[in-house]
Order: sequence, then C-alpha cells, then structure tokens
Amino acid sequence: MKSFIHEDFLLQTDSARELYHEHAKKQPIIDYHCHLNPAAIAGDHVFDNLGQLWLEGDHYKWRAMRTNGVEEKYCTGKETSDWEKFEKWAETVPYAMRNPLYHWTHLELKSAFGVEKLLNPETAREIYDVCTEKLRTPEYSARGLMQHFNVKVVCTTDDPADNLEHHLSLKKEGFRIKILPTWRPDKAMAVENPAAYRAYVEKLSEVSGVTITKFSDLMEALRNRHDFFASVGCRLSDHGIEEFYAERYTLIEIEQIFEKVYSGRELTHEQVLKFKSAMMYEGALMDWEKGWTQQFHYGAIRNNNTRLFNQLGPDTGFDSIGDFNVAKALSRFLDQLDKDNRLAKTIIYNLNPRDNDMIATMIGNFQDGSVPGKIQFGSGWWFLDQKTGMEAQMNSLSNLGLLSRFVGMITDSRSFVSYPRHEYFRRILCNLIGNDVENGLLPASEMTFLGEMVENISYHNANQFFQF
Amino acid sequence: MKSFIHEDFLLQTDSARELYHEHAKKQPIIDYHCHLNPAAIAGDHVFDNLGQLWLEGDHYKWRAMRTNGVEEKYCTGKETSDWEKFEKWAETVPYAMRNPLYHWTHLELKSAFGVEKLLNPETAREIYDVCTEKLRTPEYSARGLMQHFNVKVVCTTDDPADNLEHHLSLKKEGFRIKILPTWRPDKAMAVENPAAYRAYVEKLSEVSGVTITKFSDLMEALRNRHDFFASVGCRLSDHGIEEFYAERYTLIEIEQIFEKVYSGRELTHEQVLKFKSAMMYEGALMDWEKGWTQQFHYGAIRNNNTRLFNQLGPDTGFDSIGDFNVAKALSRFLDQLDKDNRLAKTIIYNLNPRDNDMIATMIGNFQDGSVPGKIQFGSGWWFLDQKTGMEAQMNSLSNLGLLSRFVGMITDSRSFVSYPRHEYFRRILCNLIGNDVENGLLPASEMTFLGEMVENISYHNANQFFQF
Amino acid sequence: MKSFIHEDFLLQTDSARELYHEHAKKQPIIDYHCHLNPAAIAGDHVFDNLGQLWLEGDHYKWRAMRTNGVEEKYCTGKETSDWEKFEKWAETVPYAMRNPLYHWTHLELKSAFGVEKLLNPETAREIYDVCTEKLRTPEYSARGLMQHFNVKVVCTTDDPADNLEHHLSLKKEGFRIKILPTWRPDKAMAVENPAAYRAYVEKLSEVSGVTITKFSDLMEALRNRHDFFASVGCRLSDHGIEEFYAERYTLIEIEQIFEKVYSGRELTHEQVLKFKSAMMYEGALMDWEKGWTQQFHYGAIRNNNTRLFNQLGPDTGFDSIGDFNVAKALSRFLDQLDKDNRLAKTIIYNLNPRDNDMIATMIGNFQDGSVPGKIQFGSGWWFLDQKTGMEAQMNSLSNLGLLSRFVGMITDSRSFVSYPRHEYFRRILCNLIGNDVENGLLPASEMTFLGEMVENISYHNANQFFQF
Repeated sequence: MKSFIHEDFLLQTDSARELYHEHAKKQPIIDYHCHLNPAAIAGDHVFDNLGQLWLEGDHYKWRAMRTNGVEEKYCTGKETSDWEKFEKWAETVPYAMRNPLYHWTHLELKSAFGVEKLLNPETAREIYDVCTEKLRTPEYSARGLMQHFNVKVVCTTDDPADNLEHHLSLKKEGFRIKILPTWRPDKAMAVENPAAYRAYVEKLSEVSGVTITKFSDLMEALRNRHDFFASVGCRLSDHGIEEFYAERYTLIEIEQIFEKVYSGRELTHEQVLKFKSAMMYEGALMDWEKGWTQQFHYGAIRNNNTRLFNQLGPDTGFDSIGDFNVAKALSRFLDQLDKDNRLAKTIIYNLNPRDNDMIATMIGNFQDGSVPGKIQFGSGWWFLDQKTGMEAQMNSLSNLGLLSRFVGMITDSRSFVSYPRHEYFRRILCNLIGNDVENGLLPASEMTFLGEMVENISYHNANQFFQF
Repeated sequence: MKSFIHEDFLLQTDSARELYHEHAKKQPIIDYHCHLNPAAIAGDHVFDNLGQLWLEGDHYKWRAMRTNGVEEKYCTGKETSDWEKFEKWAETVPYAMRNPLYHWTHLELKSAFGVEKLLNPETAREIYDVCTEKLRTPEYSARGLMQHFNVKVVCTTDDPADNLEHHLSLKKEGFRIKILPTWRPDKAMAVENPAAYRAYVEKLSEVSGVTITKFSDLMEALRNRHDFFASVGCRLSDHGIEEFYAERYTLIEIEQIFEKVYSGRELTHEQVLKFKSAMMYEGALMDWEKGWTQQFHYGAIRNNNTRLFNQLGPDTGFDSIGDFNVAKALSRFLDQLDKDNRLAKTIIYNLNPRDNDMIATMIGNFQDGSVPGKIQFGSGWWFLDQKTGMEAQMNSLSNLGLLSRFVGMITDSRSFVSYPRHEYFRRILCNLIGNDVENGLLPASEMTFLGEMVENISYHNANQFFQF
Repeated sequence: MKSFIHEDFLLQTDSARELYHEHAKKQPIIDYHCHLNPAAIAGDHVFDNLGQLWLEGDHYKWRAMRTNGVEEKYCTGKETSDWEKFEKWAETVPYAMRNPLYHWTHLELKSAFGVEKLLNPETAREIYDVCTEKLRTPEYSARGLMQHFNVKVVCTTDDPADNLEHHLSLKKEGFRIKILPTWRPDKAMAVENPAAYRAYVEKLSEVSGVTITKFSDLMEALRNRHDFFASVGCRLSDHGIEEFYAERYTLIEIEQIFEKVYSGRELTHEQVLKFKSAMMYEGALMDWEKGWTQQFHYGAIRNNNTRLFNQLGPDTGFDSIGDFNVAKALSRFLDQLDKDNRLAKTIIYNLNPRDNDMIATMIGNFQDGSVPGKIQFGSGWWFLDQKTGMEAQMNSLSNLGLLSRFVGMITDSRSFVSYPRHEYFRRILCNLIGNDVENGLLPASEMTFLGEMVENISYHNANQFFQF
C-alpha cells in the first residue's frame, strides 16, 4: 500500500500533477511572515528530541490534546518529560483525523525525516527515536532544516525596541539565507494598560536615545527605530489588531491622550480608539515613505480563558476567531492614506472566513495600477491555514480579484519544521487549478501560462513584490 | 430502476458504504434534544392518518406550502380535512426538490412505512391510504415507532414549572426507552412582558412551594425545580436565546430589576440584558453543580410576521436566521464560569452558518482536558439541519477541533417519524469521511479507526458524555 | 482541440446536458433588471469598435486592469484610443484566469461574434478587427444584439424625474422587445447632502407639476411620477441601499426633517435614518397598490476611494461589499407592510454572501400563499454574479426555500453584449441539478419535472410573476 503522504498527495488530476511536479515543487521558499526565533538561527540551534521540537510552544497541538481529554501537564507541564508529552500527542493524532494537524504531522515526518509511518500509540516510540537521532545531526539544526527546505528569505516578527542583534550578526556573518526583521509595533499601541505602556515607552526611549514625554517624541523614537530596522533589511511591517481603527482625531487630542496614559491614568474606550487610529495612520506613513509593505492580521479575540491565561500566559491556545464588522473602518483607513497618495503596499489577513468576499473586494478599491496586486488579500491565516481555509481564500481572491498576482503562502510559524506548509499550499493551489482545467473552467490549452502562474504564486510574485 | 431512497443513498464511495453499513447503521439512537410530547409517549398515541402525522404542527412543511402558493387554510385551517391538507402537501413535494423536505419525506416513507414511491399528486391517494392503514396498527403507535427506530434515550424539552407527570409515569412503568426531561427555563428569563412574566413567576411559586417576592426567592424556587428535574433523570439544560448575555451587574441591581418587572413596570433594554446575564450565569452554576450538560440554541429571530402570529401563534413557521455578532459576549459568558472552574459541559448551536468557524474555535478556548470534547459545537440545527448545513458544521468542527469527539445528531423534532434524520446524518457523515479516504485526505489503511470513529459519533460519544 | 467555450461548457453530466440543451437553451430572455441606456435602444446605437463596446464604462474590467498594474489612462483616459485600451485589456485577460471576466469575455466572443480564440496579446489585433467589422453591421446594433439573444423584455433603471422619452418613443413605435422603465427613487432618499437634495426635489417639482414645500407635497409629486411610470409599463421598483431602514417615526417628525434638509441644514444620523424609513415605507405602499414588485439591492459600500472618485466620479470601480447586520431591520420593514396586508411582491438581493442563509429564511416569513414565491431571494448580484456566487445563492435558496419558484437571472448590466450571462446562469443551474441527479440527491426518474423546472426558472416564472 502506497504511503499516506505520497508524491501525488492532494493532486487529483493529471493537470494538478503536472503543475505541481513541473512547476511548483522546484520553487524556493520566501517565508515573508513567521515567528521564528532569530537567536535560534544565529546560534544554529540543535533540537534535543522530537517531543521538544514539536510540543514546546505549539498551541495548535495543545488545543487538540486538551480537546482529546489530555491533562494540562502533558501539554505545558514543566515537570513532564518530552517523551511523556509526545506519547500523549501520539495518542491524540488519530483523533485529529480531518484536522489539519493530521496532515501537517505526516507531512513533516515525511518531508523533514523521511518517515512514512502514521503516528499513533503503536508507532510513537519508533518514530520518536528515529527522528530524535536525526535531530541530533548537523543536517537537522535550525539552519540545516532551513537549507533542506530550500528557503531563500525569512522575515521574523520583531518589536521596535528589539536591538536586532541576531539579525545583525547573521548579516555580518553573511548567512546565505536572508533573515530579515519585520516591524511589529503592537506594544506601542497597547494603551489599555497604562503601567505596562509606560514601561514599554521607557524602553523605547532607551533604545532610541530619544527622551519621550510627548506623543511627538514617541513618533520620533519610533521613526528612529523604523530607520534602524530599514538599515537591517526590514521590508515589512505587521500589525495584530482586533479591528481597524480609523476614528477622526486631532493631534492635540492625541497629545492629551498620550499624556493621560503616560501619567498612569486609564483611557476611555473612545480615547483608546483615537489613539490607535493615530498610531495606525502615522505608522502607515512611515511604511509608505520607505516603500515597505504593511501587513494587518485582524479579527482575533485573544486570551479568552482567564484561568489558563493566569497560569500559562499568552499564546498558549486560548485565542479564537472574532466576529467584527470592519468594512467601513477598513475603507476609511485605506482611503485616508490613499487620498494623499501615501498608501503603501498592503496585505490584509482576516481571521473569520465570513469576511473573505468583503476583503477580496475591498482590496480592489485601492488597486491603482502602480504595482501589480498592490493591495493583497493575505493567505489563509492561523485557524484558516488549512485546506478549506486556503481554498476559500483563493476562490474569493479568484472570483473578485486576480489570483495570478497573489504573493502566496507564509508559515506564520514558530517551528523550523513547518516549511512543508508551503508544500501543502502549493499542492492545494495546483489541485484547485487542475480541477478547473479538468472541469473545463480553465482552458486545457493554457497549461504553459498556468505553469508560470503557479511558479509566480509560489515564488516570483513575492520576490518581485517585496524587493528584498 | 432503483428506488430513490436505496440502501446506498448518499454514499458515493466504497469507503462510505463500508462505514455506513458495517458501522453507523447498527448503532442505536440517543436523541438528546427533541420536542416530542411526553403525554403522547406515556399514552402511546396512535395516529389517525398520514395527514395528521405529517402536517399537524410541522412548520417546515407549512413554509414550503405557503411558498408554493398554497392557501393558509390547507396548512393550519381547523376546518380543512387531513386529506385535503395532505393533497396540497403532495402537490408541493415535487416543487421542494433540492429542499431537505424532499429527502426527509421520502426517507420517512421508506424507513417508517416501506414505501418507495415518490410522493406527488398521482401517488398521493395510494400513499395516504397505505400509510394510514399501517398507522392504525400497534407497530405504528408513538412507542412502536420509537422501538422500530432503535431509540435508546430521548430527552424532551420541558419548562421548570412542568410537573413532569408523564416522565414520572414512564419511569414508574419502567418503559425500556429512557424518556428524560430537559430543563428549558426560557420563560424564567422572558422579562420583556411584565404581566406574562409575573404570571409565570406565580406559577413557579406554586409548583415549587416557594413564596417569591425577591430575585433570591426566584433562585430558590428554580433550584428546587432543578433538583426535582434531576430526580426524574434530567441531565441537560437548554436555552433558546437570541444572543449571549454577559453584561456586568451587581446582585443589588438584579434585585431591583426583579422588583421592577414583578411590579408590572417595563424594563429598559439595559435592564433586560443585565437580568438575562444574571439568569444565564446562575443557571449555569446549577448545571455545573449537578454535572449536567448545558445547551444553547442561539441566533433565531422569532415571530417576524405579526399578522400571522396574531392569527396562528408562535412556532408556526415565521421564524428565521438572525445575524448577531456574539463572539465577545459568548467568550465572557464561558470565561466567567471557567475562571472559577465552574463551567459545565456545554453544547453551542448556532443558527447562522456564518458563525460556524467562530464557534468551532471558541469551544477550543475552554477545552481543559477534563472531559474529551467538553465544549461541543452542536450539530446543524433547524434551518441548518440539511446536507449542506451538516457538512459545513462537521467541516468546521474537523478543521478547527476534533470531529472524533463529536456527540452527534439530534432530531430537535416534534414528530415520531423524524428518526430517519439520524440515518440521514450518519449517511452524510460516512460519505464525508469516505470521500476523504477516496481523495487521499485520510489514509485508506485506517478504516478500522474510522469505523470506530463513526460508531462513536453515531452513539458512543453521546452515551459516555451525558452519562444518562 | 475543442474550443474553450464549447456546447457543453460547464455541463459535467449527461443530465446537465439534457437539461440545458433540451430545456434551458431554448427559452427567451426576460432581463427584468439592467442598466441599459434607453436612448441607445431608441436610437439603435451602432458601436464603433470592440474597445468601445467593452471598455467604455465597464468598471469590472477596469478593476482587473488596475490590479494587473495597468495605468489609469488605459482604463478611463480620454486621450487614449480604444485600441490602446483594448490592447491593455487583452494583456490582462490571461491574468484574469479564474475570475468571471475570463468566462464572460470568451462567452461574449463566442455567443455574440462566433469567435473561438482565446483573447491574449497574440490574438488581440485579430479579434479586435474581426469583431469591430461585425459591430459596424446592422446585426450588431443595440437592437440587433438584443434580437440575436432572443430577448423578450428588458427593464431599465430610471429616476422618478426622468421623462422616459425613449421608453415612450419605443412604445409608440411598437418595438417588439418590451423596453420598460423601473422606478429607482434613490435620489429622493439621498438627504445626506442638503444642497443636492434640494436641487433634486426642485427638479421633481418641475417634472411633476407639484409645488413641493412639505413632505406631503413630495409624496404627491412622487405618486404623480409613479402613476406616470405605470402608464409607460413600469412593473418594478428598485432601491440601492446600504442597509434596511425601519426606524419608528411620526409623520410630524418627517415633516420637520424634510423642512430642515430642504432649508439646507445637515441632518443628524438619526434623522437620516428616520427619513429613509419613511421613504421606504411610503414607496412600498405605492408599489403594493399597483401590484408592482419591489427590489432591494442592499449591502454595497460605495466610493471608497476618494482620490479616484474626485477624478472619475461614481461607478468607476471603487465600490465594494459591506458587512452590515440587517436581519432585524429587514424583518421590521417587511412586517410593518405585511401586518396591514400591504406587502408587495419583493425581491431581496444581498451583496455579502455571508447573508445568504439569513435572507433565504427571511423571505419564508412573508410567504403567505397568495403568489408562488411572493418574496424572492434575488440572483447573485454584482460581485456575486459568478459561478461560486450563483451556486451559493441557489443552494441557500434550495435548502431554505423553493428553488422551483425562483424568478431567475438578470444581467444588471450596462452592456448590450452581456446577455450571455443568462446562458452562463442557465448552464450553472443545469449543472447543479445534473450533479444532484448524478449523485442520487434527486431522482433520475424525474427528469421531466426537472426539465420543466429549468424552463420555469429560465423564463416562465419571471413571465408569470411580473405580469408585464
């Protein structure tokens, strides 16, 4: 019997197989949005075992385990061994059939380790041992894995106050994969907690050398850091926001709001919205000036579980999809930049698929012919980073915009073995197009163009769009 | 030519056929949420004819008939004979092709009566006569039908003020199908109409023996009834709500609100929300204390047609899907219970499929490993109880949670011949999985596990989860 | 190799092919909602060339071109030749694969011009020349094209202040295709801009001969025009609205609001909502009195791009899908008319597909048996006028209502060569039904009924419903 992950996995038609094997597979990877730890790349981290590699910090797996009735100590417990955690994960895997984790797990086993067996309690020990042994060899270090997967560029996600020491050392060293920072100023907008906000502003003051007592000082400090990020090769910003903020405000109001929060007083909801609106706008201008691309990941509601947040902190599997109505604010936000011709290249990622068609039409309002696909509908993100979610995003983009100009996939991941998600994406892309050819929705005579289109979406569009 | 409803109806692949015939079909039915009349079970009701069985109280059919241009008297008219109504229904059936009624109708004819002919004006008389003759035999009584469909447990839907006399008599008699009550305190929350609310509270006072003058009295009376329901075997509560209510309030405020409404004064919108928030929270604590499962059916907007509501009353086919944004309130509601570790097992049923992915991720925030699938995404409900709706619910649950831990289907029905909807659900489930195997999305080597999974979703998961 | 648009384009099964070729294809076209220019019909416009026919005013194509990186001058430039624009369009076409423009383009080439080649830079000149030559012959005039596509009725979209001179001249002349006006009173509701509103009211006063100083005068003037439209054969109204307006108001309030806006003062948001609520209600009564059908196209957010709006004006490709929650207002709007039994036949078109199931259930609340399919869920509109959008609309309508009673497709177009969209719709409809037969979801024995159903949806339902 053929292994589960075989060479034609997900490829249902001859056209799909041709598109994948002749075109998509060969393209390098540009992972322009991820959460890899730059220190692990700079230090070329070697993983101790498969349990550590897979279960340390992977809230997707923890959520599945909790749902499967696994106790918390096997997810995040400090006292629990990596093997014990792995064993519980292996028990959970069969119960995850139809969940993307089932595909990701076996894709990673196959693509990274050459393991074709299905993970379950019977195979757990053998798979753990085989992979752990490999992990301890140089080919499986952080850098080894990146090279194995033919990665050309990686954009990490970094705070403006970060000194980017690892990016600098990698640059100096001349590491042949470009590891670039991404400007993610979420903390500079997080005025909900005045004390934490003040601490952050003080840190920003320190790294920038700008004394901050006013909003305009804050802007100067941020601009200083923005310049610094640019000098290290940054080409993108990123924003994790619930909704889009495009309230009307005056700079006097913003100065007053800044003074209030900086002096430790809580802001009203309206003040928070105005401040965030100002920050979004000012940040967008900086991105536009430098020719960067701005990314917006919106629509998550985070830290829903207070009990486990207090125990485990953020990013531990207690976030979910929200249901915000954002069209008008998003339109205003983009329009106020565009009306002065200062709208940067932009990628919008929604988390609730009910917004797909709205987003796919919104981007069309600000395509002005200056750059192909100037405003992008971001690939299926987080909860939507699965076959259904990716297909829905690509179908909406196709129906309402130009799929051919799509800059394609990102891992958005913390893991060095998650690059097979690009393979997953490409197989799904080729299968979609292949099915269309098979069903007569695309002309069979145009396989040459379709092959180029697949290559572009896999690699060339991103390469040209971001200009790393 | 093969009959329309044949043994492989809906089963497109060999895998689907194996899963259904070898696994799903044999499982008994646990119908943990329905609206059957307990008196009809206790009295073992015998139906007079097929028109009565099918058209008395079935607002799904009435809606289709009205849409087809059938006069109201043939839907709900007191003067119209059952045959005349049936005749109009038979005229409508072909026009319902692609509507689930077309499948339900022929599934019921086949599974309950062994009739394979399609219902239409030409076959109406024959089908009516054949089925009516059978209905008058003991095998087709209320109990006969339940046994015919291999039903093990049925949970009806009952008001806290109900004396549960029929449940008690069935229990005493030792009827081998468990007929259990469900706690549905909607009227205890319906403070929009002060006069009706006072009347309801007085009724509750009477049956509980608790004099109610304050909110705390109301709570005592409800707790008294909650204990009584538990003593009769109740294991679930259920709530029909528009939105989730999780406003902040103080008990003093709630006492004042109760006093106001009880004295006949209309509440402000804010007071209604606070009162409902308090009722939801207090009720949830009771359910948690007893180890019950709480169900929330949210998102309907009811009684949209004033003219026909005045003529016919509620539940006559004038309700529809609403479009509420509920994520944040739902999160707060669950979190305030969970933070004290007092969140009961919970099932959430949405009515607008645009919420599917939000709900499927929300449940993940409160899975804590204590019970597999502790928080459930309820099966396709009401308007979504059709192939598209069920597939969408199962696909979202699969992509964002664990389908394997799903407690499965309910009829939510008022009819004794609606059990084939479990068959319908199981065929759809097996077909989904079978297609995945066929398309290489699930490994063909794992049919044994998939067979168990199908059995679990059809029967064992519910059996273990509810602990009847 | 078979041409891309061949006789079985989109028809995947034998059943689909039978339904299309034996039933759908032969039906005439009733295009009950479009934006054709009546002057072009009255004057029997002859097009100069394919560039003019296709690119003058087609914001769908402009959006695709802008997204593809084409400069604005090639979309809307006054100085740019038709050929130059066409050349840029031809370059864009391959990049539009998977977008409906790719299908529409080649359907139009095939159905209107008999051209089977794919449009791209290599074929651009030849196709341009061949089609341009044909366009200059009488068969390709405005009327020639309408006759070529077997059009029986066309309803244009007209302002109440319009004198309908072209409709009158066509009527007088006895042109054998019925060209009827549609009452579209959007400007009579556009109170956001007091100066423009006053100018409009003055124009209305002039054409109606009614001196307007009060709201009741406005109503008299509108009723006067409504009568006039009826005398010219109008059978439908249409409303382009963001949301549904169903606020409570008194006539005294509305008189005051009218006086305020008419005297040049800006209204508050609440006043705007009340005024629109009154206008919607009063207009709906007029439609009901005359037995017209009222249409509502809701949910667009328009003119999102201020910079290009200032340059190019409205309807140039800068509108998009909004995300409004409308269920309760829509319910109130319909109910307040229905409760007095004065609800006209109604068609509701949503622009965000996340509303599909809500709308498909909402219409069911007001089906009263008086007319089959009295309240209609409009066919996939604007951004949803593509295969995915049409299938989603028909699937929701099928699951939650009666597809068999659907009045079917419209072009909603400004172009005389967009009639193949009816062909496109019919192929998609037949394919949906054919797939159901193939998959056993519909009985293969009922092809006769299904053939009639397809004929009804293609032609007869609209013919009977509107009573032109």
